[in-house]
Amino acid sequence: MSTILLKNVILNQNPTDVLIRGNRFEKIATQIDFQADEIYDGGGHIAIVPPFYNTHTHAAMTLLRGYGEDMELFTWLSKCIWPAEAKLTGEDIYWGSRLAICEMIRSGTVFFNDMYWHQAATIKAVKESGIRAAIGLLTLSLASNEIRQQNKRNNAAFLEQRNELPETLQLTFAPHAIYTVETEELREVQAQAEEYGLPIHIHASETQKEVDDCMAQHNGMTPIAYLDSLGMLNDRTLLAHCVKLSSSDMELIARRRSVIAHMPCSNHKLASGRFNFDAAQKANCRITLGTDGASSNNSLSMFGEMKLAALAAKESANSPEAAKAQTVFDAATRNGAEAFGIDAGVIAEGKLADAQLIELDHPAMIADFDLTANLLYAADSSVVESLLCNGRFVMKHRIIPGEKEVLQAARRCCRKL
Amino acid sequence: MSTILLKNVILNQNPTDVLIRGNRFEKIATQIDFQADEIYDGGGHIAIVPPFYNTHTHAAMTLLRGYGEDMELFTWLSKCIWPAEAKLTGEDIYWGSRLAICEMIRSGTVFFNDMYWHQAATIKAVKESGIRAAIGLLTLSLASNEIRQQNKRNNAAFLEQRNELPETLQLTFAPHAIYTVETEELREVQAQAEEYGLPIHIHASETQKEVDDCMAQHNGMTPIAYLDSLGMLNDRTLLAHCVKLSSSDMELIARRRSVIAHMPCSNHKLASGRFNFDAAQKANCRITLGTDGASSNNSLSMFGEMKLAALAAKESANSPEAAKAQTVFDAATRNGAEAFGIDAGVIAEGKLADAQLIELDHPAMIADFDLTANLLYAADSSVVESLLCNGRFVMKHRIIPGEKEVLQAARRCCRKL
Repeated sequence: MSTILLKNVILNQNPTDVLIRGNRFEKIATQIDFQADEIYDGGGHIAIVPPFYNTHTHAAMTLLRGYGEDMELFTWLSKCIWPAEAKLTGEDIYWGSRLAICEMIRSGTVFFNDMYWHQAATIKAVKESGIRAAIGLLTLSLASNEIRQQNKRNNAAFLEQRNELPETLQLTFAPHAIYTVETEELREVQAQAEEYGLPIHIHASETQKEVDDCMAQHNGMTPIAYLDSLGMLNDRTLLAHCVKLSSSDMELIARRRSVIAHMPCSNHKLASGRFNFDAAQKANCRITLGTDGASSNNSLSMFGEMKLAALAAKESANSPEAAKAQTVFDAATRNGAEAFGIDAGVIAEGKLADAQLIELDHPAMIADFDLTANLLYAADSSVVESLLCNGRFVMKHRIIPGEKEVLQAARRCCRKL
Repeated sequence: MSTILLKNVILNQNPTDVLIRGNRFEKIATQIDFQADEIYDGGGHIAIVPPFYNTHTHAAMTLLRGYGEDMELFTWLSKCIWPAEAKLTGEDIYWGSRLAICEMIRSGTVFFNDMYWHQAATIKAVKESGIRAAIGLLTLSLASNEIRQQNKRNNAAFLEQRNELPETLQLTFAPHAIYTVETEELREVQAQAEEYGLPIHIHASETQKEVDDCMAQHNGMTPIAYLDSLGMLNDRTLLAHCVKLSSSDMELIARRRSVIAHMPCSNHKLASGRFNFDAAQKANCRITLGTDGASSNNSLSMFGEMKLAALAAKESANSPEAAKAQTVFDAATRNGAEAFGIDAGVIAEGKLADAQLIELDHPAMIADFDLTANLLYAADSSVVESLLCNGRFVMKHRIIPGEKEVLQAARRCCRKL
């Protein structure tokens, strides 16, 4: 197995050497003398910290960034997004995913949980870039019968080949939402998820309308209660958004150990409302962070997401003590890894070697009293000097192999929209 | 006068050449052939856009970034900030200001409106860095008699030498706030501001307590009404924060043409409340953006400030159509320049040559349908490739002269806190 030795990087304020063998951290010590295949010299000004795990996005929608802005939701979807999406081919999805991955890598993200179509194209992009992803097998009852059947065949094919996926890729069942997937199909998905032992990834409780409609249609049950009534809430269920949770919803989510993907930028930008971070944390919910797609954020940087998560939580709770820096950093890092069974998210011997290498000789990182607070409130993607995923550099000294070609090809894809 | 020729930069989507002579844009055309003293080749992948004007900060407080975090306001001030500030010398303020300026330059800012002490040190830092600033002459009645007298002598000395300041520097009168400066002293400041023809820079309507106390003490007048009763509201008055404005306050501010400095990150982080951007805009208030000090933000990047300004406004107004990208970008750029009488903030012949040069070959800048939306919602400081202030490069190809020394010295200053 190949080895990488990180010399003189800063871990928890101490100069440290880190030896990576294969895809794991083998040894972390003050000084390691070892003839590694690859040496990275941190020079005492590079901190090693856990990278980000983005738990909800639609990666290829980076091709639609800025395509219709500041518009009412339905007008935007029907006049801009849907017509544009109808033109996207598998090749577009491939380049859109590559583009998204470049942005994620530059901003310290090693994993994304995706929900989109042309999944084979996204899988190809993930494999080539060297990062991790969970790819959703979409269910959408609203679609035409033809598309529904096509989705089913498509999902079945992926399930058949699932053992051929590399360790950095996993599948989820991705019923879009309770208002776009019929009850019967939700039950089918649930049965399949159990059969295959795969997570469920679903938009849930994203808007007040969703909650109101659900309560009207399903005997006063909230979307969360309704999903639970179908047996869909368990510790592998990822609930994207959760903007409109009641306190009973929070208790139920916590009891089932289901995972919340919180997307403050998208929720604010679409004026959907605000997830109650402080209350959900106090209810012991498992909270992770995601960016949503670039068309509604419009960034895939988890730095911006962390900062808004913390700031909105403080403002909502009317207390600067809410959503402390370490809590939010954990949500963006280890909680996301844990939610997807990735044995990473902390820098420790034996763990998978995922890490951000942060430039400390950067004006935003000084004063240097509190690295976590600096990462949360002061940093942006410009501090990310290198990124390791699964024991490999996916960006080294700010260079991502093949990025220039990706940017050119993605721009060409946009031209036809 | 020296000349700079920017070749093949993108202005409003078109490849353009830009000739700068002295401190102004002389000519903007598709092709300019001229033997300039300095040539910058944009290669067709660099956009030229207005830079940011940060209308409220306490620059040297970058030394206190992360010094006490996520704490209740008064505990934080009394246990962390005030004791630390008491240890800061003029030299610290100099390096803290240099550090702040490095961060601002990296994030596209050419001007800051400052309120702090040891102003001579900040002025030295501004001169050496080549950017612009307005420096506040502080009034603080709460201080000891000795400090008050010292402030007065200090302010008098600056006023006497004001004509020796370079064109990039201006002075303001900076009474701290209505709750820290007595009525009589506010009147004195107002008289002086009129006498010298200088702007007033004051914290106003920052918290509910300030409003409640003011109304109790001053016959039911809000802080804004109270300031107006002292004759302090005019088109050169800069009101920092304005979190708790009534609709009458907004009408009054609009009628007097006073300027609002909006600081959403700091207001959220300290849980002070939310400025009503949408209502203030509809009331025709002049809105600008600031970062506040790095100890309460904790970033000096106007990118983060713009994004939160837009997102919080949409969320508050319950409409994605509120606070459109161009409106917020103007608040961060031309409105700030205009508020301080700086003939810049737009890229046009005859205007002062202040500009950001933006890297378009960057994953966050693709798709490329809407540059302004990309700058507002997707970009961070990593897209700023170069920065021009007053006809000079203050950062070129991401290099700021002297930055390394600044970072080292600033870190040393932090060590004694």
